[in-house]
Amino acid sequence: MSAGVVKVGLLGLGTVGGGVIKTIRSQQEKLSSRLGKRIEIVKALVRDSEKERAVELDRSVLTTDFEEVLKSDVDIVVEVMGGVEPTYDYVRALIEKGCHVVTANKELLAKRGTELVDLANRHQVHLAYEASVAGGIPILSVLRQFLRTNDINGVRGILNGTTNFILTKMETEQLPYQEVLRQAQELGYAEADPRSDVEGFDAMYKLYILAQLVYGESLPLAEVKRRGIADLTSGQIRIASELGYRIKLIAQAQQAPEGIRLSVEPTMLPTNHPLAQIQDAFNAVQLSGNIVGDLLFTGRGAGELPTASAVVEDLAYLLTQPFTPHPEWKETEAATGSVTQQNGDHSLCYLEGSAPAATPDRVLHFLRHAGVDVHKLKVQFDLGGVLRAGLITSGMRAEHEELLQSDFGLQVRCFPLLGSVE
Amino acid sequence: MSAGVVKVGLLGLGTVGGGVIKTIRSQQEKLSSRLGKRIEIVKALVRDSEKERAVELDRSVLTTDFEEVLKSDVDIVVEVMGGVEPTYDYVRALIEKGCHVVTANKELLAKRGTELVDLANRHQVHLAYEASVAGGIPILSVLRQFLRTNDINGVRGILNGTTNFILTKMETEQLPYQEVLRQAQELGYAEADPRSDVEGFDAMYKLYILAQLVYGESLPLAEVKRRGIADLTSGQIRIASELGYRIKLIAQAQQAPEGIRLSVEPTMLPTNHPLAQIQDAFNAVQLSGNIVGDLLFTGRGAGELPTASAVVEDLAYLLTQPFTPHPEWKETEAATGSVTQQNGDHSLCYLEGSAPAATPDRVLHFLRHAGVDVHKLKVQFDLGGVLRAGLITSGMRAEHEELLQSDFGLQVRCFPLLGSVE
Repeated sequence: MSAGVVKVGLLGLGTVGGGVIKTIRSQQEKLSSRLGKRIEIVKALVRDSEKERAVELDRSVLTTDFEEVLKSDVDIVVEVMGGVEPTYDYVRALIEKGCHVVTANKELLAKRGTELVDLANRHQVHLAYEASVAGGIPILSVLRQFLRTNDINGVRGILNGTTNFILTKMETEQLPYQEVLRQAQELGYAEADPRSDVEGFDAMYKLYILAQLVYGESLPLAEVKRRGIADLTSGQIRIASELGYRIKLIAQAQQAPEGIRLSVEPTMLPTNHPLAQIQDAFNAVQLSGNIVGDLLFTGRGAGELPTASAVVEDLAYLLTQPFTPHPEWKETEAATGSVTQQNGDHSLCYLEGSAPAATPDRVLHFLRHAGVDVHKLKVQFDLGGVLRAGLITSGMRAEHEELLQSDFGLQVRCFPLLGSVE
Repeated sequence: MSAGVVKVGLLGLGTVGGGVIKTIRSQQEKLSSRLGKRIEIVKALVRDSEKERAVELDRSVLTTDFEEVLKSDVDIVVEVMGGVEPTYDYVRALIEKGCHVVTANKELLAKRGTELVDLANRHQVHLAYEASVAGGIPILSVLRQFLRTNDINGVRGILNGTTNFILTKMETEQLPYQEVLRQAQELGYAEADPRSDVEGFDAMYKLYILAQLVYGESLPLAEVKRRGIADLTSGQIRIASELGYRIKLIAQAQQAPEGIRLSVEPTMLPTNHPLAQIQDAFNAVQLSGNIVGDLLFTGRGAGELPTASAVVEDLAYLLTQPFTPHPEWKETEAATGSVTQQNGDHSLCYLEGSAPAATPDRVLHFLRHAGVDVHKLKVQFDLGGVLRAGLITSGMRAEHEELLQSDFGLQVRCFPLLGSVE
């Protein structure tokens, strides 16, 4: 590292990349006085060097050729281009050259993190990724701090702002999923191709990273229980609300005797649960330590500046720290039966169908005889004779759901419960 | 420091001291593997060495004589005895001997922190105090992290669990202050002499420490606006709730062009404000950074184990860090007029009096002519002809309050508003 200047290379110059440059520029004085060095962006890899950009950069800094970044004398690379290919190859080549890496790329870490951590250790470079989970919320550094003195029993949270925005709008404005998704896309909260968010992949990648940190291991991604929000209806959300619950896309990591459990799925929470109160595009992470108890951290989980803030904090931090080996990442097999019911036996089941076959009496009679307890019930009929019911149940199994579908002609959707039954 | 063992002295062995010992014991393996050293409690200063204690300690460890601690070969001292005298003298003597200090004592820091920081720097020892603010919430370390890249515009929060417990109970169970205080004392949430909590001193000390960290300076304690909760009535709390607000004891630090502002006072928040949703004995801190935006941290602010967790984290952290000088603490004069209205011009005013003089019409007429806007109003009469009114106002000044008292015979209590007017 040349005296007085830290040379930074950027891979990608989209929203977050622009935010990183703005943050480095607006906070340059503060950063220099803490680091004793100026931070300079010397190379930025972009797809199109002619494109108009929100931040001004000298044309000689921009390049469309990765080899130019690799041949330059950058000390640290900030990877904010996203994706796995060709990102992994670029990051790998830079680590092998001795560059420190700061990344916000959860997909890259969840899919190739094990190799990258190992590679960084072998080349004795920093690999920092606070920005990859929950944007501006410093959850990784807080977890590292607690792990010094606490056993962390569990981590759960709302790790995706797009889906939380959609669920909030669906509830408060009683709008269908497709319409809210379109609004979210217009507002820039959702991508043109929204699958990574709405099908739970984004939250799953973040959960994978949290598990590596907390438990020193994670499950292969294919073993994580993942369910998205695209099939939720406003009817389900409304009836949940009438029963005193709210649907959130909850990511959970828990350690059970038989192994760790990871899940991302629409989950019912009593409306007074702290995570039920996280609305709009906010993220929140709740952790339980055996000494410190429960803590909740809330903030903007995405966006140009919150994410850039985390990237630049990582940058500033690693410049003041000697290299220490990163704990190895591992993947373990999911234990059999480990990702079934997460919270005792309770669930909220939404039923919808036509009245002749499916009267509340007949449904309840069936459930009672099947050994399913119904703790609370909300039934609606509309003028067309359609029955909609929400039931807080315990003991409901897949075979009961199937029978309700086949014998009663009902659509059935059950959600696990987090928190206590109201 | 002798190889393999860190020798720790304890000043005080009450609730938190006991928690520290339990935490060190239950987490010994984790701590040793991270530190490469075992932590051993070699001396503990107590008032009464005969007293029954929740944790077992060798009798030779206990002493009632501070000189024995000073003469022992402790590397680090954990100060959890509280108070300023004789604590300050003890801590001073230990620093001068070259001992590192971990303290949970907010009063000591708020009253003598400037000198202690200076002394620790001169003797090149660590002075760590995460446990002094908001117990298990790692707010100081999070703030230090954000300060690397953010300007912090403001910090506000619920820093005292006892008063938050009392306010929650007064609202949810509609009980008078004195009765809830008695319950809190029985449950161990409030001290026999509750003044430090209910008059806002405890929250003020914590706010003072936060300001030193965030702004590099604080106000002399006498210049902090401080008002407690002991004169709040359930009538005020009820009418606030009917207007859509909740009263919380809010501590705030803000930087204004004319200087910093510090206040601790009962404050009205819309019930959907994140801080309004912090109930019971929980603490919460909200910070606003220019890059990261608003973040909220929630957890148990007191109690044996959460506080002990913070103490032991500090202990584990400083054992792995070389000494670096602590930023100097300073006190600045309060700017004139700096601690007046905190949030624009809005307040919630509670009026109570007898109907003949004080009819709603006459009161509203008076306010209109005085230039006070009334945005929302809730009026109650009881059978005895007593008027109780809650008004969301703007433009209300002390002279108006005085006239409402003298000319209308009303009791008046106005609360500043945090958040937007509903």
